[in-house]
Amino acid sequence: MAMTTKEDLFLHFLRDMFYAEKQILKALPKMAEAVDGTPLADAFREHEQETRGQVDRLKKVFELGNKEAKGVKCEAVIGLIEESEEIMEDAKDQGVLAAGLVAGAQAVEHYEIARYGTLVEWAKELGYDESIPLLEKNLQEEKNADKKLTEIALDFANKQAA
Amino acid sequence: MAMTTKEDLFLHFLRDMFYAEKQILKALPKMAEAVDGTPLADAFREHEQETRGQVDRLKKVFELGNKEAKGVKCEAVIGLIEESEEIMEDAKDQGVLAAGLVAGAQAVEHYEIARYGTLVEWAKELGYDESIPLLEKNLQEEKNADKKLTEIALDFANKQAA
Repeated sequence: MAMTTKEDLFLHFLRDMFYAEKQILKALPKMAEAVDGTPLADAFREHEQETRGQVDRLKKVFELGNKEAKGVKCEAVIGLIEESEEIMEDAKDQGVLAAGLVAGAQAVEHYEIARYGTLVEWAKELGYDESIPLLEKNLQEEKNADKKLTEIALDFANKQAA
Repeated sequence: MAMTTKEDLFLHFLRDMFYAEKQILKALPKMAEAVDGTPLADAFREHEQETRGQVDRLKKVFELGNKEAKGVKCEAVIGLIEESEEIMEDAKDQGVLAAGLVAGAQAVEHYEIARYGTLVEWAKELGYDESIPLLEKNLQEEKNADKKLTEIALDFANKQAA
């Protein structure tokens, strides 16, 4: 898609995130299942619920711009999710699996932090005033999810060391 | 590769980053060329130099573990770089190109921030004491690069608005 204005760029990245969130929605239940019965599984399931809310907020941003809510294939998130799938295949120990999935999920969170950070800045530049708080809310949730995963990982490592 | 210990997992992610940094080394000159003559091009070239230092530090981490310095294909970074390539093809305006490339580069930086953050934590858990400062240095450089890109983007947007 040719992009000649910042509005085009905003729309492209919004579609990219819409696609990404939907892929993440498919991946999270599998990741939770792989570590079922652990605090990490609870965190993945909680983030799945949060992600549904994020998709709804993105739909509102499309609506505010009078644009159809549709995704555009995002190679980055496909690659990021593939890494977690590889870990689920290759990890032969529950501790290794949990640590690897935390790392995989954090790479996804950081991708989203970068993208929502960009979308918030662009929404400000473009004067999309009603979209700003929606995107900021998604950004904040991703930052919180990243912090929570760090806490779970440290807690898990400390218990293993004890 | 089957992974049964945290040491295996550390080595896998180290190889993943070694591959990623080398791909980034190939991408940065193309990105600089696309915005030649701008502060953004200078920032990309500066980060290319920094990245060479990061590769050297990763080689030292391999050496400290008596492991061969070799990469493992990282689908995430391939996807992230592809996004910037798409922007270079599709952007039909210099401002859109610059904004898109800043966003693309920041997504890569955030991937690296997540990965180096993980590697630092694991190096601590595993008692890889000499590797910790090397990985922390790489982490700090990526965080600084991300901040610098934000400044360049805001400066550019302000000039366009003026």
